Amino acid sequence: MSILLKNGLLDGKEVNIYIEGNRVTEIGSKVEAEHVLECKGKAVLPGLVNSHTHSAMTLMRSYADDLNLHDWLEKEIWPLEAKIGQEEVYWGSKLACLEMIKTGTTCFNDMYWHMKGTARAVDEMGLRAVLAESFIDLFKEDMAEEMKKTNIEFIRYLKDLGNERITPAIGPHAVYTVSKKSLIWVREFAEKEDLLIHFHLAETQKENTDCERMHGKRPVSFLEDIGFLCDKLVAAHSIWLTEKEIGTLASHNVKISHNPTSNLKLASGVMPYCDMKNKGVTVSIGTDGCASNNNLDMFEEMKIAALVHKGFSRDPTVMPAKEAFKAATLGGARALGLDVGEIREGGLADLIIIDLKRPELSPGHNLVSDLVYSANGSCVDTTICNGRILMQDRCVEGEETLLENVRSIVDDLIQA
Amino acid sequence: MSILLKNGLLDGKEVNIYIEGNRVTEIGSKVEAEHVLECKGKAVLPGLVNSHTHSAMTLMRSYADDLNLHDWLEKEIWPLEAKIGQEEVYWGSKLACLEMIKTGTTCFNDMYWHMKGTARAVDEMGLRAVLAESFIDLFKEDMAEEMKKTNIEFIRYLKDLGNERITPAIGPHAVYTVSKKSLIWVREFAEKEDLLIHFHLAETQKENTDCERMHGKRPVSFLEDIGFLCDKLVAAHSIWLTEKEIGTLASHNVKISHNPTSNLKLASGVMPYCDMKNKGVTVSIGTDGCASNNNLDMFEEMKIAALVHKGFSRDPTVMPAKEAFKAATLGGARALGLDVGEIREGGLADLIIIDLKRPELSPGHNLVSDLVYSANGSCVDTTICNGRILMQDRCVEGEETLLENVRSIVDDLIQA
Repeated sequence: MSILLKNGLLDGKEVNIYIEGNRVTEIGSKVEAEHVLECKGKAVLPGLVNSHTHSAMTLMRSYADDLNLHDWLEKEIWPLEAKIGQEEVYWGSKLACLEMIKTGTTCFNDMYWHMKGTARAVDEMGLRAVLAESFIDLFKEDMAEEMKKTNIEFIRYLKDLGNERITPAIGPHAVYTVSKKSLIWVREFAEKEDLLIHFHLAETQKENTDCERMHGKRPVSFLEDIGFLCDKLVAAHSIWLTEKEIGTLASHNVKISHNPTSNLKLASGVMPYCDMKNKGVTVSIGTDGCASNNNLDMFEEMKIAALVHKGFSRDPTVMPAKEAFKAATLGGARALGLDVGEIREGGLADLIIIDLKRPELSPGHNLVSDLVYSANGSCVDTTICNGRILMQDRCVEGEETLLENVRSIVDDLIQA
Repeated sequence: MSILLKNGLLDGKEVNIYIEGNRVTEIGSKVEAEHVLECKGKAVLPGLVNSHTHSAMTLMRSYADDLNLHDWLEKEIWPLEAKIGQEEVYWGSKLACLEMIKTGTTCFNDMYWHMKGTARAVDEMGLRAVLAESFIDLFKEDMAEEMKKTNIEFIRYLKDLGNERITPAIGPHAVYTVSKKSLIWVREFAEKEDLLIHFHLAETQKENTDCERMHGKRPVSFLEDIGFLCDKLVAAHSIWLTEKEIGTLASHNVKISHNPTSNLKLASGVMPYCDMKNKGVTVSIGTDGCASNNNLDMFEEMKIAALVHKGFSRDPTVMPAKEAFKAATLGGARALGLDVGEIREGGLADLIIIDLKRPELSPGHNLVSDLVYSANGSCVDTTICNGRILMQDRCVEGEETLLENVRSIVDDLIQA
């Protein structure tokens, strides 16, 4: 199918964007296509890339908030998670996909359990995603073997599914939940299968001190020593890092997923953005899961990122709007190694259309500032992923039924 | 006119809310009214109260961002402001009212220039507002006389206008822009006319050190000494305060307007929320003007408030959702001395209706958490102020024309 976005604003100029199959094939003069969307007075932008989330955790949105990490996890999140199977993950991920489509995210990086459920949801909902089964062995041999099997099987499942929008990955959870032996296995497996590695790094100070106690080194040194650091590693959070450690991550071309809302809400700390920028590290943005955010709106995440670094560094020039926007688009694309995050001829057709006739985008002095500091996901009018229209005029097919099904799945879960 | 909100969720229970004239007169069994709104599956909430803004600054939204305070004010904001007259203020305030109506704010506290323009806008748009002319004399006698005249005239203008939704106030800008003599005059004038005093307090460290240099005391002591502190004082920002100073503010029942987004964006600092809570100070929430936010969405402001205090105090239990919600409703009502901020029989009919069938509010474990951590202003379906429906199904009469007029006013302003 061909789609023409007619008279849309791209970098301040009115253009016609022609999409054939799953790619943008021409930005210029074409005036006809099978499907024409009039974009006069609207901006066309790359779809946003959410580089760290646990999509099925929409099921736990607002289930438990404002608690200490310990109480939150042990008394609330884990007991509920224990009851979640593939069917629940499928519905939670469907809800997440719906929310992302409605807020302009076209691609996300996910690590969780029962990920076949998420794969089915992504397959049906039309988004692009990088999917990894969590790998947690709690330093037990038998659990490690179980995890290897689950991961090998999941990668095979995705290959059989053969959906070009879904990229397989592997999700070793963190240094405090995965043994050294398993981390080495994961790294080798990822190398062999050419997989991204989705990981939590230096989220809390406790993680660092526990790692020193267990391995005699802080996480970055430990991971470097075992050959774990590489350009396919996407490290979420990455808060408690020294300048030297950031240099080490940079030298291995490790990619960072910055999760400012989650880091504030769980009081984990603030990522050293300026040091990362100075060392040239690729910084992307992720919402984390809905239990610690509580939404998947990447517009909001850009704003909170841009605000928090100004506030904490006491410098209002830090992370200007265009850097936040770049992190949420090209930064994410680079982190995930995907040909998205910008609109150009030949690139994948993942894009969103913003209606500029809205009070919060008026009078319209500067689009990027408006997007980062004033917009939210509801400004997105149309969402296109892989050359397919997933939302037009804010309508997504089947939205109401999906919400009802999720409600009923969650009712059963709570009562179970 | 009578309005019935039928089957709406209020504090988790399905009720019928009957509005007669400008008040809620019955919560209970009434089933008929001149105008019936079916609210099945929707939540009814008090309208949000924005306790510190400069509404006409919507005209400067995204005009200049990511700059040092000095460059931002002197090179960008002030030169543009110098060109703004009553007509521009009228249109900027109309835009602000539109944005507030669309994001569930029914009442705001405003201090700016040419405020007759804002009064006209509020009169037409149907919101409730407390309006003050800025009082800045830069320590000059002639300017002080001019300001007194402007303020006296504005108060008279509002009395003549006789709009019950508009409460007159006076807006001495700050200790670094108003002389001691004028502050004393303002306090006496406010006492005589029974006016709220809208003020900026301790926004920057520089303000405190400059005040010590000029008056030999930090702002709170200086203001206490001249008798300025009182229960009619709404102090915006209020960042650089010691525990003792907060105790002083509490003892005079001074009200605080907390402006977290502006404080982060301009890198001013973080308000000591926990100390204020401990001392029992009334804390409300305000967005500040659109030049330093850049929107007027009080849902976003609640979230950022709740996040920033967790992040800075490194304690995830600080400012739970219900405290943020209370600050944005009852806190604002108490700060402004208005009978709004909660829904009860006999109270003013300022309320909003939220459609719960939205992905970001699903599955719906906890409404207050969903509102603070996941919602944004676009979740508001219907806005009612003073017993009049200002928005229904997200439609506000005349929206498109208003946006076009603002665009043309701003084009003229930039070219002038």
